[in-house]
Amino acid sequence: MHVTWPVEVGPESPFPITNIPFGVFSTQDSPGLRVGIAIGEYILDLSCLEEKGMFQDLLQHREVSKSWNHENSGTKKSIFAQASLNSFAALPKATRSAIRNKIIDILQYEDSTLFSDPALNNEAFHEQCKAKMHLPMQIGDFTDFLCSRTHADNCSRLAGIPEGAPANFYAFPTAYNGRSSSVVVSGSPVHRPYGMLRLPSSDDYEFGPTRKMDYELELGFFVSKPVEYGKLIKNADEAKEHIFGFVLMNDWSARDIQFAEMTPLGPFNGKASATTISPWVVTLDALKGVEGVIGDEVARERMTELPPHLRHDSVEQTWSINVEVALKREGYEKAVILAQSDLRSLYWSPAQMLAHQASSGCGLQSGDLLGTGTISSQAGECSQISSLGCLHEITAAGTKPFLISNGDVLIWLKDGDEVVMTGRVVQPDGNIIGFGECRGLIESPLANF
Amino acid sequence: MHVTWPVEVGPESPFPITNIPFGVFSTQDSPGLRVGIAIGEYILDLSCLEEKGMFQDLLQHREVSKSWNHENSGTKKSIFAQASLNSFAALPKATRSAIRNKIIDILQYEDSTLFSDPALNNEAFHEQCKAKMHLPMQIGDFTDFLCSRTHADNCSRLAGIPEGAPANFYAFPTAYNGRSSSVVVSGSPVHRPYGMLRLPSSDDYEFGPTRKMDYELELGFFVSKPVEYGKLIKNADEAKEHIFGFVLMNDWSARDIQFAEMTPLGPFNGKASATTISPWVVTLDALKGVEGVIGDEVARERMTELPPHLRHDSVEQTWSINVEVALKREGYEKAVILAQSDLRSLYWSPAQMLAHQASSGCGLQSGDLLGTGTISSQAGECSQISSLGCLHEITAAGTKPFLISNGDVLIWLKDGDEVVMTGRVVQPDGNIIGFGECRGLIESPLANF
Repeated sequence: MHVTWPVEVGPESPFPITNIPFGVFSTQDSPGLRVGIAIGEYILDLSCLEEKGMFQDLLQHREVSKSWNHENSGTKKSIFAQASLNSFAALPKATRSAIRNKIIDILQYEDSTLFSDPALNNEAFHEQCKAKMHLPMQIGDFTDFLCSRTHADNCSRLAGIPEGAPANFYAFPTAYNGRSSSVVVSGSPVHRPYGMLRLPSSDDYEFGPTRKMDYELELGFFVSKPVEYGKLIKNADEAKEHIFGFVLMNDWSARDIQFAEMTPLGPFNGKASATTISPWVVTLDALKGVEGVIGDEVARERMTELPPHLRHDSVEQTWSINVEVALKREGYEKAVILAQSDLRSLYWSPAQMLAHQASSGCGLQSGDLLGTGTISSQAGECSQISSLGCLHEITAAGTKPFLISNGDVLIWLKDGDEVVMTGRVVQPDGNIIGFGECRGLIESPLANF
Repeated sequence: MHVTWPVEVGPESPFPITNIPFGVFSTQDSPGLRVGIAIGEYILDLSCLEEKGMFQDLLQHREVSKSWNHENSGTKKSIFAQASLNSFAALPKATRSAIRNKIIDILQYEDSTLFSDPALNNEAFHEQCKAKMHLPMQIGDFTDFLCSRTHADNCSRLAGIPEGAPANFYAFPTAYNGRSSSVVVSGSPVHRPYGMLRLPSSDDYEFGPTRKMDYELELGFFVSKPVEYGKLIKNADEAKEHIFGFVLMNDWSARDIQFAEMTPLGPFNGKASATTISPWVVTLDALKGVEGVIGDEVARERMTELPPHLRHDSVEQTWSINVEVALKREGYEKAVILAQSDLRSLYWSPAQMLAHQASSGCGLQSGDLLGTGTISSQAGECSQISSLGCLHEITAAGTKPFLISNGDVLIWLKDGDEVVMTGRVVQPDGNIIGFGECRGLIESPLANF
């Protein structure tokens, strides 16, 4: 194929030239995984530009990144002919920004070799609809936080705790370690999980497919610069330097499995069957100018009382990223929007989450994934629609069926339901950028016994 | 150096020829990480034997193992010139056993080239005392279970729950996801962690070094054959096929950090600062014949009530592995034994743990690490000494200082304390094999603010 200059970007495209998100893809003709960026409806193959030496001036002095666990794994090799973004994310921030700027330059100037060399053009551009997207990063550890005051209050009350969020919620960003092996990319099958369920009318447990399948509307962010084992991060402002970029995240939750196992050790199998993320990582460069103070008033007021590692001294604390979850169900004409919310509304910022995780001295590696937890906000704060990020909250733990605009009544997810999350950001110049989609369709349970 | 046949193995050595544990090492002369086995006081370098073609007949037909997340990572390469045992562990069980048998043959016969070829002998043998051991596997996910009834009862009662272990303890092996980035090999520094502590006399939290540093005496085991994402394991007997082997594990726990954060999301930073494991993986082949029924009577009686995935139909359910924890403190003449216990005493078997984890459909990868949880047993069951696997239990949450045999009084761990765990197994023929040591010395906190 040949893509002519300027690359066409439709007005509804989440991927204008001000976005340049990074992802990992393969094509039918060339099944090897490699790194590309999204522009309009195309993918630009960076491994192919790298091979032509187009980033050589920016990459020649780079250090070889090492893991502290596997000392001899670091050899100087290609950054983009890789099955993950880990090598790229581990580069210094300035190098990554320079590479992104160079990509913008190459795309913006009619006389760049990308457009004048037909062979290169043909090799470098792919249509997104014909490519297969993969997990963008090789994930070491995956952590999921609980940072929405609305979500914490609602879940506590639904669990019979009238005072709402627990005391520790206000003291530090609480979290649990998630399962990284089942983090999958948008479009991957999600089978209704089996698990140990607590039977409603007894104290007994039963093994069977979940009856309370739920989504959770979240954002995930990846670690760029590692934090060495044993080292702490000074404060939340410094922690921002370790964030590579954001993806949409659906933290699928089987509520009956989760609540049977959660006391005292926290969520385990109820949230392990799958966590779906969107394939394109929107970097902090694309989010410049959408930074601001945390939206939660109580959080802002208490900032000065915080321990040093959780403090933001700057006003760039979090990002305004609007997220939305919609449902496609058999018989629906189109997807129905269930909720809209915003990252800004959280009580804790992504940087505070990262700083708190690092405060144990556990070390963070490039590619580690941190989830914000369900992004629920106060009704009306972000939208006229619901602003609650999961069915557990919307339906009050399944007790209040949710009447949706097309007349259907919703409690939990059925087999065949498809949950579609999207995200959008209004950049300071009015440009709108997006994340693409994070989709997952519930399939029937896979039991081999 | 030259090692003559037969390789000398002292009577106290944990590594006689009936053991052959696998590990990853490097030497000063040759800093590249590679795989070796321990025999007496030596390491036999398997990468060097592989290079000479000594395993060629066993390895030539092997399949290339793949991860489902990173499709093009599987290339046919050396099994032992690797920084981890993952490639070896992913081989079919029969191939691994054949390789182990071949190693035993090579060591046992005077006329093997290992002893007749001085250059090979010099290259292949290393003194353990001069080698550096590394993490044996590249760990994807790390899970820690709670499987000792004694530990569950004690911890519940210390938390003010008089009835003891929670109901779900008896229904399935409960667990939480651990932090894999801070799993470190024996001898690695363990810094007293910083964290958010609950102040004793108020509802407030404070950021500072833990005042309640504790160890937990555990065994860890690694996954060999992967379980594909979405697939379940039929029963606990089948789950045994996915276990590669065991290591000693110290799940360091900062109790004040842990208990401030544990409700509702489970243990997080309080157990994230470090988890120390011993470097040598003792494989199931070495543990043949020490298999038997689960020691916990209640567990055995309830076996038939279990859901299919947790059932053992065979009598080979768990392994008798004796574990011990000792303390070296400034002023002590020698290490003081604090407790002895046995894997057999647990309520749930390692195979049941693995089967339960897989039942979510999360998938397991070669190198995933599962911990048994603290191996506490009934007093007198395994030893005349304490059989409680952590100070939290021994000292009743710090309220009853523990008078040890040398006259010292112990509550929590001090900086400079060294915790040493060992393990031993009596094989059916009376041979005793061991695990080597799992040591960690508490260093002062590392704060950079």
